[in-house]
Amino acid sequence: MQLTPESLSSRDRNFRRNFYNTLPGPRGVHLIGTKGHRGTENLGVFSSVVHLGASPALLGFHLRPLTVPRHTYHHLKARGWFTLNTLHPDFLRAAHQTSANYPLGESEFAATGLTPLYSENCPAPYVKESPVRIGLTFEEEHHIAANDTLFIVGRVREVFVPDEAVEDSGHVNHETLQSLTVTGLDTYFRSSAVDRLPYARP
Amino acid sequence: MQLTPESLSSRDRNFRRNFYNTLPGPRGVHLIGTKGHRGTENLGVFSSVVHLGASPALLGFHLRPLTVPRHTYHHLKARGWFTLNTLHPDFLRAAHQTSANYPLGESEFAATGLTPLYSENCPAPYVKESPVRIGLTFEEEHHIAANDTLFIVGRVREVFVPDEAVEDSGHVNHETLQSLTVTGLDTYFRSSAVDRLPYARP
Repeated sequence: MQLTPESLSSRDRNFRRNFYNTLPGPRGVHLIGTKGHRGTENLGVFSSVVHLGASPALLGFHLRPLTVPRHTYHHLKARGWFTLNTLHPDFLRAAHQTSANYPLGESEFAATGLTPLYSENCPAPYVKESPVRIGLTFEEEHHIAANDTLFIVGRVREVFVPDEAVEDSGHVNHETLQSLTVTGLDTYFRSSAVDRLPYARP
Repeated sequence: MQLTPESLSSRDRNFRRNFYNTLPGPRGVHLIGTKGHRGTENLGVFSSVVHLGASPALLGFHLRPLTVPRHTYHHLKARGWFTLNTLHPDFLRAAHQTSANYPLGESEFAATGLTPLYSENCPAPYVKESPVRIGLTFEEEHHIAANDTLFIVGRVREVFVPDEAVEDSGHVNHETLQSLTVTGLDTYFRSSAVDRLPYARP
């Protein structure tokens, strides 16, 4: 079928939200951990993490409008650090539950039973249950004028990953790690490798 | 294991590139189609498409440095339109081959055997073989200073998707469509649903 924003305008808001959110297909999903100046720990699910470069190592993610309080944003700006943590089927329900709208003083760790874990350098909490944990510092932000949202750029400062998941080539094997992906805000997927293809030449 | 940019600096460039590129996990992968002013069709693989919002419907993607010619960028700026097309196992090798460095005059469609398809409104070519095809107009661009790259924002203008893949709720079923994901630049995955979870409340 062919759909346009005009033809979709007759459908209800939930249909449109589900449709556009799931349209591009499965994408990465991560828990972002932050800590505020008063020591409040925050954890939220994000499905917009993008690899931006290896030298320096940069990752970006997208944040919804700041018209409601965004604890992740305020904390990462205040402290300068945040963590990215991958999702595994064993704690999917707890991870998804962090997307609930908890008040600022309440830690999503305490509310969901996930375990905060700290390294020597990073003031933001990691998720102990996550197989891959990445500590980043805030690098830059971009205001997306078209819908008043933000794109945040962070610089990788440290990484924790199981030894057996790192291949000799440097590839991190996410099939072994059972890293999840998501479509929209609610449908989670497991990945199985189809093929690894050689560098393409004309 | 714990790794830092400092500890990784002793590893060779390929290891570091593979490591950082695959680190965040599987992500969406798409063919972006564009057409230049002289009629040259261009097609390239991108693994950085992000959903930015449903109202208006916006998608973003990341582009590497413009220090070498980037046909996708030049065409989408010149004509104002581009297309996003999902990947399916049946034409994975052809899709991956579009990442080879073809000269500007040579169409990746002709080189790889994929079929350009045009709609009434969109001057950029779709990939006929792709189950989900999205036509967008250029909306804004952001310069990522940290590594001199670009983040492009596009606005969805039309969508082509198989009827049977759109559920009553609006969810597009990418398991049925066999939409692929990728880690790094070379390892492609199939997705199988683990769970669809209800909207989380505290």
